[in-house]
Amino acid sequence: MSFEPDVLQGFVQRYLDTVANGKAEDVAALYAEDATLEDPVGCGEVHIGRQAIAGFYKGMEGDHDITTELLTFRAGGHEAAFTFAITVGGAMRIEPIEVMVFDGDGKITSMKAYWSQENITPL
Amino acid sequence: MSFEPDVLQGFVQRYLDTVANGKAEDVAALYAEDATLEDPVGCGEVHIGRQAIAGFYKGMEGDHDITTELLTFRAGGHEAAFTFAITVGGAMRIEPIEVMVFDGDGKITSMKAYWSQENITPL
Repeated sequence: MSFEPDVLQGFVQRYLDTVANGKAEDVAALYAEDATLEDPVGCGEVHIGRQAIAGFYKGMEGDHDITTELLTFRAGGHEAAFTFAITVGGAMRIEPIEVMVFDGDGKITSMKAYWSQENITPL
Repeated sequence: MSFEPDVLQGFVQRYLDTVANGKAEDVAALYAEDATLEDPVGCGEVHIGRQAIAGFYKGMEGDHDITTELLTFRAGGHEAAFTFAITVGGAMRIEPIEVMVFDGDGKITSMKAYWSQENITPL
């Protein structure tokens, strides 16, 4: 299974747009039913399944404006690796590296976000 | 298992230095015995075990000067994600995103490199 790079980039851009403008359920709907999410990687918590994933994004919801910007994109078969910037409430900017795996329907089956405190910039 | 970010960055820097200045066997020695390597991701070939991995790097050896430069680094537990530039023979520059997983001894147990033709720049 493999997607053209621009198709994968479209999946990633849709994800970033939905994180910025959608509800937690909208973001979770981009994931496969049995997907896994680890954000940030290395903190011991892996969210398994769309319901748990919706809960994760629910925690990000609030009164804050969120903006996202794709910075660097790399395609690989049915996977994608990318750097992006996310700003929260105009107060801070984080620049993670994320890796996503997609199924044949373009749903995310695995998401891993690599970042730590050092990658947060107060604005 | 977890490493401090600067320790992980040291592992990655040592890897990039060895790719630039070492032999295939030197690079392979940074990998665990049963490690896996996929470079580029999505092309169907996963190299399994240190001997196969040495063979992969052997294919990169030659008369060409290789330089490497770490561009962006993100730590995550015992994993690292990073962007870097590699130039070959002063003729081309590639900028992959790589993800590495390390064992408790700091050996690489998994390496995945995300890049494609579009990420190659003739110099």
